[in-house]
Amino acid sequence: MNTYKIINGILVQVKGQVPSINEHEVLVRIHAVSLNYRDLLVIEGIGQWTPIEDRIPLSDGAGEVIKIGGSITKFKVGDRVTSLISPNWESGKLAPEKIIVTLGGSSLDGVLAEYVVLPENALSKFPDYLSYEEAATLPVAALTAWNAVIEQSTLKLGNTILIIGTGGVSLFALQFSKLSGYHIIITSSSDEKLKKAKELGAHHIINYKKNKDWIKEVLTISEGKGVDQVVDVVEGDHITESLKCIKSEGIVSMVGVIAGIHGSIDTGMIMSKAARIQGVETGSTEMYGRMLAAMHLHRVKPIIHTVFPFEKVPEALLLLKKGDHFGKICIKLE
Amino acid sequence: MNTYKIINGILVQVKGQVPSINEHEVLVRIHAVSLNYRDLLVIEGIGQWTPIEDRIPLSDGAGEVIKIGGSITKFKVGDRVTSLISPNWESGKLAPEKIIVTLGGSSLDGVLAEYVVLPENALSKFPDYLSYEEAATLPVAALTAWNAVIEQSTLKLGNTILIIGTGGVSLFALQFSKLSGYHIIITSSSDEKLKKAKELGAHHIINYKKNKDWIKEVLTISEGKGVDQVVDVVEGDHITESLKCIKSEGIVSMVGVIAGIHGSIDTGMIMSKAARIQGVETGSTEMYGRMLAAMHLHRVKPIIHTVFPFEKVPEALLLLKKGDHFGKICIKLE
Amino acid sequence: MNTYKIINGILVQVKGQVPSINEHEVLVRIHAVSLNYRDLLVIEGIGQWTPIEDRIPLSDGAGEVIKIGGSITKFKVGDRVTSLISPNWESGKLAPEKIIVTLGGSSLDGVLAEYVVLPENALSKFPDYLSYEEAATLPVAALTAWNAVIEQSTLKLGNTILIIGTGGVSLFALQFSKLSGYHIIITSSSDEKLKKAKELGAHHIINYKKNKDWIKEVLTISEGKGVDQVVDVVEGDHITESLKCIKSEGIVSMVGVIAGIHGSIDTGMIMSKAARIQGVETGSTEMYGRMLAAMHLHRVKPIIHTVFPFEKVPEALLLLKKGDHFGKICIKLE
Amino acid sequence: MNTYKIINGILVQVKGQVPSINEHEVLVRIHAVSLNYRDLLVIEGIGQWTPIEDRIPLSDGAGEVIKIGGSITKFKVGDRVTSLISPNWESGKLAPEKIIVTLGGSSLDGVLAEYVVLPENALSKFPDYLSYEEAATLPVAALTAWNAVIEQSTLKLGNTILIIGTGGVSLFALQFSKLSGYHIIITSSSDEKLKKAKELGAHHIINYKKNKDWIKEVLTISEGKGVDQVVDVVEGDHITESLKCIKSEGIVSMVGVIAGIHGSIDTGMIMSKAARIQGVETGSTEMYGRMLAAMHLHRVKPIIHTVFPFEKVPEALLLLKKGDHFGKICIKLE
Repeated sequence: MNTYKIINGILVQVKGQVPSINEHEVLVRIHAVSLNYRDLLVIEGIGQWTPIEDRIPLSDGAGEVIKIGGSITKFKVGDRVTSLISPNWESGKLAPEKIIVTLGGSSLDGVLAEYVVLPENALSKFPDYLSYEEAATLPVAALTAWNAVIEQSTLKLGNTILIIGTGGVSLFALQFSKLSGYHIIITSSSDEKLKKAKELGAHHIINYKKNKDWIKEVLTISEGKGVDQVVDVVEGDHITESLKCIKSEGIVSMVGVIAGIHGSIDTGMIMSKAARIQGVETGSTEMYGRMLAAMHLHRVKPIIHTVFPFEKVPEALLLLKKGDHFGKICIKLE
Repeated sequence: MNTYKIINGILVQVKGQVPSINEHEVLVRIHAVSLNYRDLLVIEGIGQWTPIEDRIPLSDGAGEVIKIGGSITKFKVGDRVTSLISPNWESGKLAPEKIIVTLGGSSLDGVLAEYVVLPENALSKFPDYLSYEEAATLPVAALTAWNAVIEQSTLKLGNTILIIGTGGVSLFALQFSKLSGYHIIITSSSDEKLKKAKELGAHHIINYKKNKDWIKEVLTISEGKGVDQVVDVVEGDHITESLKCIKSEGIVSMVGVIAGIHGSIDTGMIMSKAARIQGVETGSTEMYGRMLAAMHLHRVKPIIHTVFPFEKVPEALLLLKKGDHFGKICIKLE
Repeated sequence: MNTYKIINGILVQVKGQVPSINEHEVLVRIHAVSLNYRDLLVIEGIGQWTPIEDRIPLSDGAGEVIKIGGSITKFKVGDRVTSLISPNWESGKLAPEKIIVTLGGSSLDGVLAEYVVLPENALSKFPDYLSYEEAATLPVAALTAWNAVIEQSTLKLGNTILIIGTGGVSLFALQFSKLSGYHIIITSSSDEKLKKAKELGAHHIINYKKNKDWIKEVLTISEGKGVDQVVDVVEGDHITESLKCIKSEGIVSMVGVIAGIHGSIDTGMIMSKAARIQGVETGSTEMYGRMLAAMHLHRVKPIIHTVFPFEKVPEALLLLKKGDHFGKICIKLE
Repeated sequence: MNTYKIINGILVQVKGQVPSINEHEVLVRIHAVSLNYRDLLVIEGIGQWTPIEDRIPLSDGAGEVIKIGGSITKFKVGDRVTSLISPNWESGKLAPEKIIVTLGGSSLDGVLAEYVVLPENALSKFPDYLSYEEAATLPVAALTAWNAVIEQSTLKLGNTILIIGTGGVSLFALQFSKLSGYHIIITSSSDEKLKKAKELGAHHIINYKKNKDWIKEVLTISEGKGVDQVVDVVEGDHITESLKCIKSEGIVSMVGVIAGIHGSIDTGMIMSKAARIQGVETGSTEMYGRMLAAMHLHRVKPIIHTVFPFEKVPEALLLLKKGDHFGKICIKLE
């Protein structure tokens, strides 16, 4: 079978044997995977994300159950499943031990292979209306967005949300916000992307590059008060921008680290606005189930930018790095 | 009558007429006032706290109603009352317009005078068991602590709270936490203050100056997981220390700005812990009422360090600045 | 001017003078009113709803501001406004004193007149996209539904709600639930009404008259677990039916009293399901503002069954009593 | 070994073999058990509580781990443990499948035996400061009270709670309320019991038998508004009494079924007060852990009325039925 591994710090395609399973494991034929920003950090070996030798990268994949171990009860051969990045976060609140073990990181192999072996709790069935490529986009980007704008959010019908950018998490946040009846403002540096975001349901679009006064525009739209919640994927110093955009007692949801994991923040504004800054980690298997149920009900279709063939993984990673895409980048494993 | 005013940037004691009132106002004979860190910023004219000429400073005072305007219904002559720093924040959520007007700041005269005239909504009755000096400590320090550890808190009986320092807000936070049955850790750089904090009910005391590994000690006490909430009066870069002390999904309540209004914060930790940073502003008149009811029920006695006579206001301010006190600093107006 | 009054227990149309206003009042030319079940109880003088002599009935109306008193600041001549049934419930939680004074009941005249005089807090502006007839349907039915399915609800995108019947409150509950992305089941005894409810967005329709096993059908739809919330307008013994339909820790929202104000309830089931029965009163002026903002954003159009001319009020009341309508019954005052 | 079983509908003491365990089980030497009202229903075979032949009754016991199966990881020989009535409710929200299997009921044997075999999830360690008799009182009564006044409650420091009666759940509710700083009213038909309740920290005591106007007294104590929460163990028609005692938006927690599992309830009052009636089931293993931590912190001592020797179980049951006790009734197994 074909797989990619990180050998001597370089991603290479190699041949291997279809792996065998023990009684607690499931063999899955992967049909599609999708890329997240974290995969880039792992593959490039940046900081804490440095992988061990021979690591198979990528956390998010979708495929078909081929074989099950003797004690497996939740799946049967033929089930269409996705991976779950943090198998041990099954339910309840976050705890360190629930997110130490993750797929395609330092602890476990990922899913960039034709056949993968996973424990039962690293898998979830998905609804029929989704293709393998679509399902492969869900484990990290959709779940993080779901956690930020639904599970951890206090927003109600008609409240205003500001979504920063049009990356993977932001687009799912847009789709879930739309279905929840929120009042949606979205920003980007590209008019073309903003046009697409509008088609997806954003009520207001703002090009923050062209409009230096974009924060003022956010405030005008929100009647001078500021928005109820910001979904901020940038972080770092950007949090202070987000704080300026919220109303008193508003929420800034931190869902990404594009600008790094440190920021100089205006703590005075946090106090005077009685603001709430809320860190968001992906989510639990139970949340994933609720998300899939909601997606199924509304037949939500993930936005996919390009589906690359298995041979073109390097090109796919380059595209991710460049950041010109609108929607998830997928790889198909025929 | 005697009063203090800030004239040419200097606090001076002056004589004046007992002021007259209109139909919507109340004349109060002030018997005691207490100092907050903010008063120091106003008197020293730092940044946004620069007062206008002739400003009477100080937000927190207690006294007796001497005369009421014709349309006053909530008070009668003889009522024992405290001031309220933000008269327009009567109920509901925080909004900028509710905290623009504050006593003893840029917008309104304060209470460092034998007689003051205040609108009805800048006053609240207080329970009989409290002296004027004790009541004078409540409007800012007690209410901020109440908001942080009761109104905005999700803690329940037996949960663990870490209180940073032994300043005015911290001591009220300690008292309210004790009554709520929380598990309490408190820090200070003084063993003597820590001893007193223990007498007030702290379960664990940590001298962060002597113990460089104080965060580790916090984690040990909280079974390696971290505490449920930190009440942080320091802010600035200190927030990252507080983040290290909380458990996943824990709360860092920002209640002070001792270290300034900007900080370099570890945003990566906010995400990986799904932490909530919660800014805390004093509170509404409704919250003040709930606080007084709880204090009354439990006969809570504010901790007072020294009561100075009216002539010794400069000495009182010096003591505040030095920071060696344990408990509120009050001034008595005989 | 023309008005209706209840004289000697009978509703009669009478002529009168256009009333004058004091400085705290507003004169409104009513253009449309709508009927609620409560109006029937008042007009028929049932129990606590017995009106005083000469009472002008009806709580819900929409019109234009014609004249304002000297101290009015929130309205100007020409504003399009609706009445508010409980003027004293401006914000915050419910309290008895906030709902003692109501329009068209025992305490105040209502709006079934060409000209009415109301205090400032009994009025609210409404969005331009709504006609007078549409706006007249909002004060009671829409606000009660909003309170039940948005303000007091814990439901999130994709959760399942069961709406009992297709009366005024139920239809607004359906519309708000649809916009919030809930999974919606609705019941009725009429296939024709159910067909219309489906066109409005219900995912599942159940004729409880034809289908004696309708509760079983609800459970099947909700995967055997039961729904997250029931909006129950029937009450009385019907609550036990609703309890059977919810899942563990589900909510039964009590929004009506069609079956009377006493019921024999299965208290054992409340415990074994850890159920929450939640009483719902209309709502505050602040909630009304949030509702109007959400309606405006989504251009929600109230469902109107018939608009009667002013002379046909008795016919309109008969229709309400018969219960064959689908949507609100309005009266136009040309 | 000695045990009690229900044979032909009669509770008899019999001799038996110390049971053997499989790899997933734990053998516990029971040192003390405590009685709940439910045990009476099981032993008398009332309704759904009819036991199967040879059933060992009683859900609540405490003892020492004697032997563990090969795959047991949470316990070791010598651990002091209590039983858990619903082993499958380990965490999260209530679900029917989590409470179908219960100790000492229709599904599983209970703990009224010198030696019992239990699966790992039916046991919990308890703090050292508690005796076996004290620990035996916790699994049902303490956990139900904890769930009602802590987990499901929205009460904060200083809020008012009304506790009905002085049974097992009520006394734990009193103790947890006291530690949380609530304002406590308790009722009983016995002045002697009320005196003891006052010693345990109740602020107000009411003899509802002597004082026909007891509801009025509750309202007077709560300043005419009503209390924030009622803990009601009576149920049935009594709920209407409880509804009269709460303030608007108050909570009636249903924790018992002394008056049966049906009640005629004033549904009109539920609406006009926007009341919340909240059913309460025992609780999860996670909640039990939080309760034990809080009890440990505050060294809470369960109130025990009498400890009977093993031979006197029938006398103990008679006492329970008579209802004259104040505190839990325990049996010691030497």
